Amino acid sequence: MATLQDLGVAAAINIISAFIFLLVFAFLKLQPANARVYYPKWYLKGVRQGSSRSDERGSLLRFVNLNYKSYLHFLDWMRDALRMPEGELIAHAGLDSVVYLRIYLLGLKVFVPLMLLGFLVLVPVNVTDSNIQTGKIFGTDIDKISLTNIREKSPRLWAHVVMTYVFTAWTCFMLFTEYKTVARMRFQFLAAEARRPDQFTVLVRQVPLDPDEPISTHIDHFFRVNHPDYYLCNQVIYNANKLAKLVKKREGLQNWLDYYQLQFQRKNTERPMTKTGLWGLWGQKVDAIQYYTDGINQISKEAAAERERVLNDDSSKLPVAFVSFRSRWGAAVCAQTQQTRDPTVWLTEWAPEPRDVYWRNLSVPYLQLTMRKLFITGAVFLLIFFYIIPVTFVQSLANLEGIEKKLTFLRPIIEAKFIKSFLQGFLPGLALKLFLHFLPKLLMFMSKIEGHLALSQLEVSTSAKYYYFMVVNVFFASVIAGAAFEQLKTFFQQSPSQIPVILAGSIPQKATFFITYIMVDGWASIAADIMRIKPLIVYHLKNMFLVKTDKDRENAMSPGSAGFDTVFPQLELYFLLGTVYSIITPFILPFIIVYLAFAYVVYRHQVINVYDPEYESAAAFWPHIHNRIIVSLLVEQITLFGVFAGKRAAASTPLLIGLPIMTIVFHYYCKNRFEPAFRKYPLEEAMSKDIVDRATHPNWNIKTYLQNSYMHPVFKDSEEEMDEEGFDAERSTLVPTKRSSRSNTPAPSANGEESPFHG
Amino acid sequence: MATLQDLGVAAAINIISAFIFLLVFAFLKLQPANARVYYPKWYLKGVRQGSSRSDERGSLLRFVNLNYKSYLHFLDWMRDALRMPEGELIAHAGLDSVVYLRIYLLGLKVFVPLMLLGFLVLVPVNVTDSNIQTGKIFGTDIDKISLTNIREKSPRLWAHVVMTYVFTAWTCFMLFTEYKTVARMRFQFLAAEARRPDQFTVLVRQVPLDPDEPISTHIDHFFRVNHPDYYLCNQVIYNANKLAKLVKKREGLQNWLDYYQLQFQRKNTERPMTKTGLWGLWGQKVDAIQYYTDGINQISKEAAAERERVLNDDSSKLPVAFVSFRSRWGAAVCAQTQQTRDPTVWLTEWAPEPRDVYWRNLSVPYLQLTMRKLFITGAVFLLIFFYIIPVTFVQSLANLEGIEKKLTFLRPIIEAKFIKSFLQGFLPGLALKLFLHFLPKLLMFMSKIEGHLALSQLEVSTSAKYYYFMVVNVFFASVIAGAAFEQLKTFFQQSPSQIPVILAGSIPQKATFFITYIMVDGWASIAADIMRIKPLIVYHLKNMFLVKTDKDRENAMSPGSAGFDTVFPQLELYFLLGTVYSIITPFILPFIIVYLAFAYVVYRHQVINVYDPEYESAAAFWPHIHNRIIVSLLVEQITLFGVFAGKRAAASTPLLIGLPIMTIVFHYYCKNRFEPAFRKYPLEEAMSKDIVDRATHPNWNIKTYLQNSYMHPVFKDSEEEMDEEGFDAERSTLVPTKRSSRSNTPAPSANGEESPFHG
Repeated sequence: MATLQDLGVAAAINIISAFIFLLVFAFLKLQPANARVYYPKWYLKGVRQGSSRSDERGSLLRFVNLNYKSYLHFLDWMRDALRMPEGELIAHAGLDSVVYLRIYLLGLKVFVPLMLLGFLVLVPVNVTDSNIQTGKIFGTDIDKISLTNIREKSPRLWAHVVMTYVFTAWTCFMLFTEYKTVARMRFQFLAAEARRPDQFTVLVRQVPLDPDEPISTHIDHFFRVNHPDYYLCNQVIYNANKLAKLVKKREGLQNWLDYYQLQFQRKNTERPMTKTGLWGLWGQKVDAIQYYTDGINQISKEAAAERERVLNDDSSKLPVAFVSFRSRWGAAVCAQTQQTRDPTVWLTEWAPEPRDVYWRNLSVPYLQLTMRKLFITGAVFLLIFFYIIPVTFVQSLANLEGIEKKLTFLRPIIEAKFIKSFLQGFLPGLALKLFLHFLPKLLMFMSKIEGHLALSQLEVSTSAKYYYFMVVNVFFASVIAGAAFEQLKTFFQQSPSQIPVILAGSIPQKATFFITYIMVDGWASIAADIMRIKPLIVYHLKNMFLVKTDKDRENAMSPGSAGFDTVFPQLELYFLLGTVYSIITPFILPFIIVYLAFAYVVYRHQVINVYDPEYESAAAFWPHIHNRIIVSLLVEQITLFGVFAGKRAAASTPLLIGLPIMTIVFHYYCKNRFEPAFRKYPLEEAMSKDIVDRATHPNWNIKTYLQNSYMHPVFKDSEEEMDEEGFDAERSTLVPTKRSSRSNTPAPSANGEESPFHG
Repeated sequence: MATLQDLGVAAAINIISAFIFLLVFAFLKLQPANARVYYPKWYLKGVRQGSSRSDERGSLLRFVNLNYKSYLHFLDWMRDALRMPEGELIAHAGLDSVVYLRIYLLGLKVFVPLMLLGFLVLVPVNVTDSNIQTGKIFGTDIDKISLTNIREKSPRLWAHVVMTYVFTAWTCFMLFTEYKTVARMRFQFLAAEARRPDQFTVLVRQVPLDPDEPISTHIDHFFRVNHPDYYLCNQVIYNANKLAKLVKKREGLQNWLDYYQLQFQRKNTERPMTKTGLWGLWGQKVDAIQYYTDGINQISKEAAAERERVLNDDSSKLPVAFVSFRSRWGAAVCAQTQQTRDPTVWLTEWAPEPRDVYWRNLSVPYLQLTMRKLFITGAVFLLIFFYIIPVTFVQSLANLEGIEKKLTFLRPIIEAKFIKSFLQGFLPGLALKLFLHFLPKLLMFMSKIEGHLALSQLEVSTSAKYYYFMVVNVFFASVIAGAAFEQLKTFFQQSPSQIPVILAGSIPQKATFFITYIMVDGWASIAADIMRIKPLIVYHLKNMFLVKTDKDRENAMSPGSAGFDTVFPQLELYFLLGTVYSIITPFILPFIIVYLAFAYVVYRHQVINVYDPEYESAAAFWPHIHNRIIVSLLVEQITLFGVFAGKRAAASTPLLIGLPIMTIVFHYYCKNRFEPAFRKYPLEEAMSKDIVDRATHPNWNIKTYLQNSYMHPVFKDSEEEMDEEGFDAERSTLVPTKRSSRSNTPAPSANGEESPFHG
């Protein structure tokens, strides 16, 4: 167990390293050459322009900021990040991002009062008791101010019972307010939103095939009969997965071509050569530019042929369609109702917005979905509980003896003592690190196999999987020592009444471990996040080797997004730690609060200046977050049961039964009260938006507006080549008009020392 | 454990007593005086008429059947019961009754092949092994042909593994076919049905109050805006619970008045007198006819005043309404969609048919529903697991010493030895019997408190509660000896992996007990059911004391209904026994099959000739039945796990894991595939019925048809008094027109020896 010194040292190291990260960040951020890494959002919005003006200056100034004054204000970004009001932020970055930031705020709203109460009430009660005879090691110092210090059967436990109720009530109250606010924000957002194709459109799956009619006509007839007054048109989906692959391949070749053309331009002496094998490392030597130009032509031809085939071959039409209606009311009705006797055909659901569609999965047969879900659930279960087995296996393969035997020429190097010990310590760890690094990608891959149709669903589904993984392999694995599958055995072979006792036995002892975990995993990772090391390097590499035009440079920015699939589970884990320890060891709360506050500022800055989300789901993920926090409360309550039973508090323990009941009732209340807001589009909302629309644009031609709104991006790209104008008209339907009108507001970073571009 | 003789004797007793019951039934049935007890359905349909014609004969013939030939064919009712084809039966008795009978058929379809396979495959495999050294007692004789006789680690267990898969697959296949058939029958029934008010109507709850408008106008405005093309009218609900009480009270007084008037007519000498106290036992002596006439007048006045108050007082209008639409399509859309942002107001659901509405609960505030449900769930849980405690307490109060102390004058009687021992054996049993007798009524009362709005829902909800009670207190209480709350302790303190072992330890031993149970509870109760002892007595009493007119006699018939609330749980329990024992002790199956076959014939007879269901839910209960059988399969599989683990069949046990997974997948598949058919009205169905309707009755005035279709029965009664014609027009909307056209078909009992009325 960590001593007080250990904890202090850890905190100092983490604070200092975070500070260094921030200094480096401030320095990097001020260099003009990095502007597109740290302010891509503003470039995308058109507020910051290409470097045409700064080109006039000396080349040094183009890359380095020599204005010493700007360095004095290196922490101003924090103030700037907090300055933009919420309403403006919604318009700037979308509702998803704003609600995401509110999770951190919610954490502060929940935990700050809990911490105050904990330190004002529980700590004095704990510290004046004497279960632990004050010892020499620090472990007992934390234990002295925690529940561990209360003697058995002490009447002081009543304070903890009362506080548990207060804490639970407060958490539920905050959850309730937040759910209500987010639901309201969602409706306001949807109501204020400009016209969008998904408001009029329903995704229809499982269209039954009719031997006599082409699929589009069949859909047409069905909806003309059953929604006669509202049906407008339908867009059949083509199975363009092969075409998408070809297009992607062409992009890869285009990158290489760009690279070699740039090299040729710069050197201007000899034509660059390449080898035809893998990654240009093996095979015949050929003229690179010629080789890749040929390759691109070849693939373009293939793609054109495939495109023809897809569009004309009936078998490539999927039994899926986007069906559009004359009014939002008609679409809302169709999405919420059952169409035919057989509930497995003509399935309708509210269409995701075009950017959010995950096209590849539209071709997954509906009847496979259950099997896929089952298979993935089983796979995730195995992954969570048994992942350690293959990792250990790989570790055992990667031992030095094995490598020496296979690669004998490495023996002299490996046998050097320093290197050997380094490798022996490093290699096994590397296997685990690599696994953990690729885990989110693996989970996302699994979610894709599950067959979700929207990117937003994919992220939420992945984040759920990752959350379970973290809870089992971080929380429970630390609490109940041993690998996950051993815990499983423990839980399965113990009687249910023993589970709280097991938790209660070890949870209080692990407080210091989790404090360290919060500092290392939380504090440090945020500070590292803000520096954007990877995008920084990638951007400069691309800039050096691939960028030819301003548009290329824009493509090289890769602003990324918050990455809800990995961010949510981490946050939810901290909520779990906070609630579980709030009564037992309130000392953990300040560390979580520092994390939340710091993360809030940092990610608000990122949301304003960096991230460019791929889609806008209008906070559809909120029920997920809410439910996880409810689960945290339940884990806390089960643990407390065990702790109180351990203290033989016979009088107060039964009182705790009220807590889970209260929590579950609260959960169901919230579910009924708020969850429909995130799943359905109420008719009243649809109708009022229809009425306003009809009054303001009586002659608007909805059919041309909706005709090609849901087109597979690969067709869009090829159409762009052929018909630039048509594509623009198309594109304008996808980008909210509000944004373009907003883009005239000055960016916060555009005024003053931080942006020498405009200086 | 019962010996072979015991079982044989029990079977003989039960068969003989069933036969005697049948003889008595045949005799009673043939007496003309009982015709209205045994054939009420035909009187209600108007096929059998009042006894006007038979009046011409001698008075003896009116009551006793002297035609000796008719007694020779005393079992013909069985043939008659089976003769009516299913389609005709649906028209005759409704879909609910037909699908209810199909449950017995489903049981036969499932268990007959299981029995055949069990006796052809499993019994030979079992009997040739030698785990049990053949002993003297019969227990081992059954055990010899059951799984118990297989030795540990025997390769013969593979036969059982394979058979388990075959049995599960067969059961699932039959369940699937049945679910599909029932869903199809339901849609056909709904499509073939005559015009009914509930097709056009939606029940709206939680109408928010508007201070500026009366509630009806407010509803009107809301739906005119949000369903402009389809909304027709609305009927606000009044809180008429007090009025209903008054009307009921008046009916009670009317009964007494009829009784005394009849007495006066018959005796014709002195005016009958009564006492004003409780049940006419205490208090002042008064002229009875005058007393009750005054009472009725008094209450009629009160009722009229209350009626005025209810109709004119705004506060008696509930925030609930039946909202009708111009088309079925409009109603189906409104019922399936969310109306406003706040999902707790303007709640719409498909309205139950007018006869099915449980009016009293319409006044339950919606926000109480969750609390009520929670409260009742807790109460049912306590009732199931701890009911034995108050029963024991009452038993201890009802001991003889206590009674002797309080009622000292009884001492000489009680002290008589014979009476004392009789009472001591009888009284404690009586407490339990009384409790079990009133249990379904108690559970129905609880379901009513839960706030269900339709009688059909009430019955399904009660049957679920009763099922849990039976599973815990009949099945598990027999398997794990001890009171229910001790089982709870067992399950809670054992590890989950121990539960199959516990079940496996005792389930095989209890086979003979359950065989006896099936004979006593099943066989005997059906035979007793067909005699209708209670309705027989009640009818003759009423006939003697209350009946003045033919209409009174019709009211006295009380045909009753199948009573799904008690019948389903019993059936489901037999399904549980059948599936759990099908592999372990196939010897139990013939007893269940006899029960099912016998019950099928008897209840088919009852459905044809007796029952007159209060409502028609179009088999809305089927998912409930299906789910219970799935649970039975899961209990079987868990038990088998334990049995195989006990046999140390290390190779075959893991194979069993596939079974629950298969079953659960099957369950979810069926749920997705079929359950919506029982919850929603598909738009295609609604639209096609609308189109046909519009084509056949282009000028039909829907508004007058729907105007008062959902009127509280108490208002209907008073309107009947005032406006006979208006009431008739009203009534015709409730009774399916098909029935009246059907009523000309001859009743099977109307031709020949059984009905001396027409002879």
